[in-house]
Amino acid sequence: MSQSRSSANIGVVGLAVMGSNLARNLASREGNTVAVYNRSPERTRTLLADHPDAGFVASESIDDFVASLAKPRTAIVMVQAGKGTDAVIEQLAERFEAGDIIVDGGNANFHDTIRRERELRERGLNFVGAGISGGEEGALKGPSIMPGGSAEAYATLGPILASIAAIAEGEPCVTHVGTDGAGHFVKMIHNGIEYADMQLIAESYDLLRRVGGHDVDAVAEVFAAWNEGDLESYLIEITAEVLRQKDAETGKPLVDVITDQAGSKGTGVWTVQNAVGLGVPVGGIAEAVFARAVSSKPEQRAAVQATIESRPQVQPAGDGFEDDVRAALYASKVVAYAQGFDAIIAGAQEYGWRIDLGSIAKIWRGGCIIRARFLNRIVEAYAQNPELATLLEDPYFAAAVRDGEAAWRRIVATAALSGIPAPGFSSALAYYDSLASERLPAALVQGQRDFFGAHTYKRVDKEGTFHTLWSGDRSEIVTEPSTH
Amino acid sequence: MSQSRSSANIGVVGLAVMGSNLARNLASREGNTVAVYNRSPERTRTLLADHPDAGFVASESIDDFVASLAKPRTAIVMVQAGKGTDAVIEQLAERFEAGDIIVDGGNANFHDTIRRERELRERGLNFVGAGISGGEEGALKGPSIMPGGSAEAYATLGPILASIAAIAEGEPCVTHVGTDGAGHFVKMIHNGIEYADMQLIAESYDLLRRVGGHDVDAVAEVFAAWNEGDLESYLIEITAEVLRQKDAETGKPLVDVITDQAGSKGTGVWTVQNAVGLGVPVGGIAEAVFARAVSSKPEQRAAVQATIESRPQVQPAGDGFEDDVRAALYASKVVAYAQGFDAIIAGAQEYGWRIDLGSIAKIWRGGCIIRARFLNRIVEAYAQNPELATLLEDPYFAAAVRDGEAAWRRIVATAALSGIPAPGFSSALAYYDSLASERLPAALVQGQRDFFGAHTYKRVDKEGTFHTLWSGDRSEIVTEPSTH
Repeated sequence: MSQSRSSANIGVVGLAVMGSNLARNLASREGNTVAVYNRSPERTRTLLADHPDAGFVASESIDDFVASLAKPRTAIVMVQAGKGTDAVIEQLAERFEAGDIIVDGGNANFHDTIRRERELRERGLNFVGAGISGGEEGALKGPSIMPGGSAEAYATLGPILASIAAIAEGEPCVTHVGTDGAGHFVKMIHNGIEYADMQLIAESYDLLRRVGGHDVDAVAEVFAAWNEGDLESYLIEITAEVLRQKDAETGKPLVDVITDQAGSKGTGVWTVQNAVGLGVPVGGIAEAVFARAVSSKPEQRAAVQATIESRPQVQPAGDGFEDDVRAALYASKVVAYAQGFDAIIAGAQEYGWRIDLGSIAKIWRGGCIIRARFLNRIVEAYAQNPELATLLEDPYFAAAVRDGEAAWRRIVATAALSGIPAPGFSSALAYYDSLASERLPAALVQGQRDFFGAHTYKRVDKEGTFHTLWSGDRSEIVTEPSTH
Repeated sequence: MSQSRSSANIGVVGLAVMGSNLARNLASREGNTVAVYNRSPERTRTLLADHPDAGFVASESIDDFVASLAKPRTAIVMVQAGKGTDAVIEQLAERFEAGDIIVDGGNANFHDTIRRERELRERGLNFVGAGISGGEEGALKGPSIMPGGSAEAYATLGPILASIAAIAEGEPCVTHVGTDGAGHFVKMIHNGIEYADMQLIAESYDLLRRVGGHDVDAVAEVFAAWNEGDLESYLIEITAEVLRQKDAETGKPLVDVITDQAGSKGTGVWTVQNAVGLGVPVGGIAEAVFARAVSSKPEQRAAVQATIESRPQVQPAGDGFEDDVRAALYASKVVAYAQGFDAIIAGAQEYGWRIDLGSIAKIWRGGCIIRARFLNRIVEAYAQNPELATLLEDPYFAAAVRDGEAAWRRIVATAALSGIPAPGFSSALAYYDSLASERLPAALVQGQRDFFGAHTYKRVDKEGTFHTLWSGDRSEIVTEPSTH
């Protein structure tokens, strides 16, 4: 079935929806000849039958697939992340030659990507872990692509990826993120931010309904209106669409028919695990992951609800409540992105990547789930000052937070008094107030730690490390710096 | 130097402060003869010289140490957790015989403990990872001990550990937690709860000072008074002590001289990483870990503070403010413990442990850092209903939260409006309100996920898994259950 030998400049292995769509996207672009292969040939045949004009070079054996690729051979693996990935990579690696390129376009854990890149590099092969965001439609029409791997591999791969990526402000949404696992790391953070974004939208919706008294249609229109302003983004846009959707069977808003237990596929969990391990506070993302987890515990929810005698009275919404919610959403979103970018900085430092933060913001402007007008502001912020200590320091974002601050506070207070959970809004505000407080009670924590564990403390007025003899005469001694 | 062959029923390897104190504790109890060994003999000699009446059987070689132990040989390794632990364990394992017992009393990662137990079991040896809490003083006078490992090993080891453990309500604070890594897992959760406890105390202190207008002495007296009631606990007690402490040099309260950047040693991070991986929301612990991390980023704090034009006006404290803070602290504490126990349940399920939750609460009543009157209530709760879906379901705790609920809400609102970070209080309240809400906006999240990723959703009114054809005619189709 191999139609042509060594004629394809790019191949795709794994032809489920994401792989098929990516292959179609590649085939539709000038200059690409696309080899395709799937373990079970039915999918390959279907793809060919459905798209006879795509010019696919199809193979039904891995040997034929490899033979159909021009050198340097470049193949994108699009299989379910996990153990299957290693098997497919090994099949290719056994047949590929020095300088050939294997791309993992799945949602791999970046730790696996680092390992795979090292193993294949030692065998003379290029391995590129590439995060691809945009879902099925993005894969077909133009995703945001976050490739890692070597600069050498990117020289060949970059133009191919640029040909299929989304375009934002005239630029393709792809950049060489950094070496080895950098691409999958940044994709992981993208997904973590996506969790935070979605949770903040969910809290806004809940407050507009339960405090604002809006019906679902009215909330949909609020989101649609917000999508005309600073909050313009794919997630805000589809929120309006979801809220407008009526259930055909009952006539109710679909959102009222959907079970209120949110699922997840793991990248949010990874983001929290890695960020906390890197010492980066990511409350906005963590609270979003936790909120989904709580929602999915119906037994605990029922058990607590059975103990309740009365719920608190919902606070009056007051004038400008919609605007208050919008301000809280915007400010909380700034915090979530600031935390996400901090995690990228910490990851780059830990794993030896040189990541250009402005470029990351650029490639997130199109194709991916978190695409938003907002990201232009982040591009500008890092263009003005690539060394920002935090995104919250940037004059535009600092002003945005200041402008929304009073409303943000009112919303968090209203939610707390009304019994409406707003973990994303309140965590983001507490984070901001922690950064904004001249003195934090962390000094007391250090005192406690010195008391029970002799962990020592620093002083505000002189250098050195100190310990109070709490079990002794309570005098202070100078100690060596703790090495814990 | 070996004074007696095969005469010791227990040995200690590693004689830094924790190891020395544990050895002294063991030696002070009827029936124990304690072998001691340290890699550098100076420490051994110092211990012997300082405590000539302890009857230590000291060795300066590992061979002599092993020879000094009666069978089944039982040795507790008290070295810094990490790679050194494996080396010491291997030294013992090479010399030990079938049925002998190696105990790791350090703060090991429970994943390492699971691995070590498996490796040693395959060699016929017993390995027990034992979490030991109480710091240096606890090690000497009676810690809380959380041993894992086999029941066989516990038959020998249990009475020895019981002889040195703290006593609470007449019972020694030790129990066989579960097999292999169960002990170190539970110790990890203990430390995570400790982080949450300390953060909640820190927030209370901050609010009493900055909203309540109390000076440090007055806050100290508030904590001392609280220590006479439901909040009675080691951490509340030492908080009063730390706050009473004056800096000899400046005359100021010590807490005002300590740098407000809190450190950590990693078990809080582990707790969050593992709990989130197990799908357990632990916002109370995570926000505590994040709060320490934020405090330790002086560059970010300075950068944000430079952007501020004015801070919000602090809200008036009002009558009963102290009581409100106490209620918020107590309710938030209930949440943090509920989350911690949920993590134990999830860990037990994941790793195949049978953990008796009431027994865990019992052994935390004495010796350890989180010891508290409060734990008696948890013991009672699990005695009444071992199958609680959440600690918040227990009638006592449900009533406690109800009683404090209005105050809790006022405090979170006041903190938000006043610009005082209360991430622990507000995360705990949002968690409670999530459980208490009949409907959560997680339904919207599911709708969004179905829109952009075809992740499907469940319906409230019928079985099955559904998907709306968002890019098509927006009709709903029945899908196979998602296996993601």
